[in-house]
Amino acid sequence: MISCRHVPELRQNRFTKEWVIMATERAKRPEEMRVKREGHGPLPHYVATCPFCPGNERLAPPEVVRFSGPDNHWAVRVVPNKFAALSREGEPEWKIERSRRRINGVGIHDVIVETPDHALTTALLPQEAVKTILECYLQRFRAVSQDARVAHITIFKNHGVSAGTSLEHPHSQMIGTPVISSQVRQRLYEALRHFDEFGECMFCCMIEEELAESERLVLTSEHFVVIEPFASATPFATYIYPRRHLASFGDVSEAELADLAGVLRTTLAKLYAGLDNPDFNYVIRTAPAEVAGVKYYHWYLSVIPRLTRVAGFELGSGMFINTVLPEQAASFLRSIEAGQLSVAAADHQPH
Amino acid sequence: MISCRHVPELRQNRFTKEWVIMATERAKRPEEMRVKREGHGPLPHYVATCPFCPGNERLAPPEVVRFSGPDNHWAVRVVPNKFAALSREGEPEWKIERSRRRINGVGIHDVIVETPDHALTTALLPQEAVKTILECYLQRFRAVSQDARVAHITIFKNHGVSAGTSLEHPHSQMIGTPVISSQVRQRLYEALRHFDEFGECMFCCMIEEELAESERLVLTSEHFVVIEPFASATPFATYIYPRRHLASFGDVSEAELADLAGVLRTTLAKLYAGLDNPDFNYVIRTAPAEVAGVKYYHWYLSVIPRLTRVAGFELGSGMFINTVLPEQAASFLRSIEAGQLSVAAADHQPH
Repeated sequence: MISCRHVPELRQNRFTKEWVIMATERAKRPEEMRVKREGHGPLPHYVATCPFCPGNERLAPPEVVRFSGPDNHWAVRVVPNKFAALSREGEPEWKIERSRRRINGVGIHDVIVETPDHALTTALLPQEAVKTILECYLQRFRAVSQDARVAHITIFKNHGVSAGTSLEHPHSQMIGTPVISSQVRQRLYEALRHFDEFGECMFCCMIEEELAESERLVLTSEHFVVIEPFASATPFATYIYPRRHLASFGDVSEAELADLAGVLRTTLAKLYAGLDNPDFNYVIRTAPAEVAGVKYYHWYLSVIPRLTRVAGFELGSGMFINTVLPEQAASFLRSIEAGQLSVAAADHQPH
Repeated sequence: MISCRHVPELRQNRFTKEWVIMATERAKRPEEMRVKREGHGPLPHYVATCPFCPGNERLAPPEVVRFSGPDNHWAVRVVPNKFAALSREGEPEWKIERSRRRINGVGIHDVIVETPDHALTTALLPQEAVKTILECYLQRFRAVSQDARVAHITIFKNHGVSAGTSLEHPHSQMIGTPVISSQVRQRLYEALRHFDEFGECMFCCMIEEELAESERLVLTSEHFVVIEPFASATPFATYIYPRRHLASFGDVSEAELADLAGVLRTTLAKLYAGLDNPDFNYVIRTAPAEVAGVKYYHWYLSVIPRLTRVAGFELGSGMFINTVLPEQAASFLRSIEAGQLSVAAADHQPH
């Protein structure tokens, strides 16, 4: 075999127009991307001081909503974030002083406690339990969308210290902000531009291309397609797109939600098994309520394993250097068997 | 004293239009932001396997340029990055396939070795040595600006593991890319819009306001102003702005460069002393060569201490949650005496 020197390649993210440097000269094999996680080994099923463990409910703020499990105990519950970034009380008021803009920080900041078991993580949960978490997201998303003070909702999960979590117990969060961020507006604008030019949703178009080419596919299901994006900024960034055109997560159907539970669990299980339980974030990206029905935007869920560090070049240019080609990452993840993890989960059930 | 509950506040970055949540409810005192650094204690002055230590020059690619010190040995030298993100050979060629854009990764990726002493850091260097580093930046910036294949240049430093560095020896980097990133274009566009509307550089306007109000000033000199920005996204982000309107770093004067050496050293020394040698990145942000002379843009140097982790909310919305008010950070940094560090540096000189 002749070892061939690859010239690096710049690829443009069609949705943000940002360029990513695929530095294949520095390329690592996917297995090399495993990162030793900070902290501890296996977690206990129950921690006496954990505000999210069953029996300690008084340590968290009063419950907003709960979903019951088969045993009539809670399976998933929502509480306001005790250290909320935004205040639930008051009305947002713009203060404008020359080029300075301020708004008082009014909004909703919830914590979704995903399971009573302190030791579990989504990859190890049964599909039914993941479905309950997603149902909870959807219910809260729809309820908070009715709040006139909230302009945009972000649902996200931080798993592990490098992903920014401060509590071990499996949980995710929802923040409803009184503004639509500039970053979200920019994506809406680019998608609208594409629609104006080509008369199509650019996400639908991309999904069709990726299905035809298949080299960046991780898995597909009846309603979803899981892809390593063409211009992936970081190794193993994995995106779950609904096949049906839909701008807002709030309009997802029951059948889609049930399917998504399996797809999300399998995706996270492949990362768990293939990269040794990496720290990760996931985020549901959706059109804001004010443009929920538009033809040009498409909701999705992105999973970002935190395997690398952002350095000065990325901070100072907005461009990323990625050392793992998405085609390689997809091929690696396709090869990972994720089924057996659901068996291992049986040992982890709360007792 | 009555403890008062602060309502959080959203502030808009006027240059990017992005909102930042100032979560004063979660506020920490500046001293609490000190982060235990990963890794080791004090570094040795010389490491036999380090490609940037004197005598090991053969371990790095052939030198591009060197600046001599008072003893006629090299003080600062530039080498191509051995693991370059871009290839120095070839011409950039656009490959366009439907909505996909690729360019072969041609460009310049240099390493600037800042001192022969493995153990030093900018905060501990004498001002003269910092000036030589800046002179080296300027010379390389001007030379690479002549390369028709390079559209934009980013000069940056990664200090410490959480700032993304992989080599301990003090160094910075310069990457010349064949494109102007979408992020940079967006900033140019916002600045142009402001100019069109108000007939002024929005940076000059902001500097004037900050000098008048003074609560976010860290220090000022004849040619520079050091500010904690009004909508700072992360704790202690510290920006050095030239007072004179100038779009491109390449047009800086000799007097300004000499002044900047003192200002940069003092700024980094304040962070070093006040936050216990935090990991940080700095970046020179400048107009691209093609718009070097414009009235609407303004170059600057931003220092970003890496005290916190980016989590799912930031990744998924582009909005940041900052727990340290810039006014508090500025007041804290003003109080830090940075003079004595130059004395301590005497112990660290190469022998």
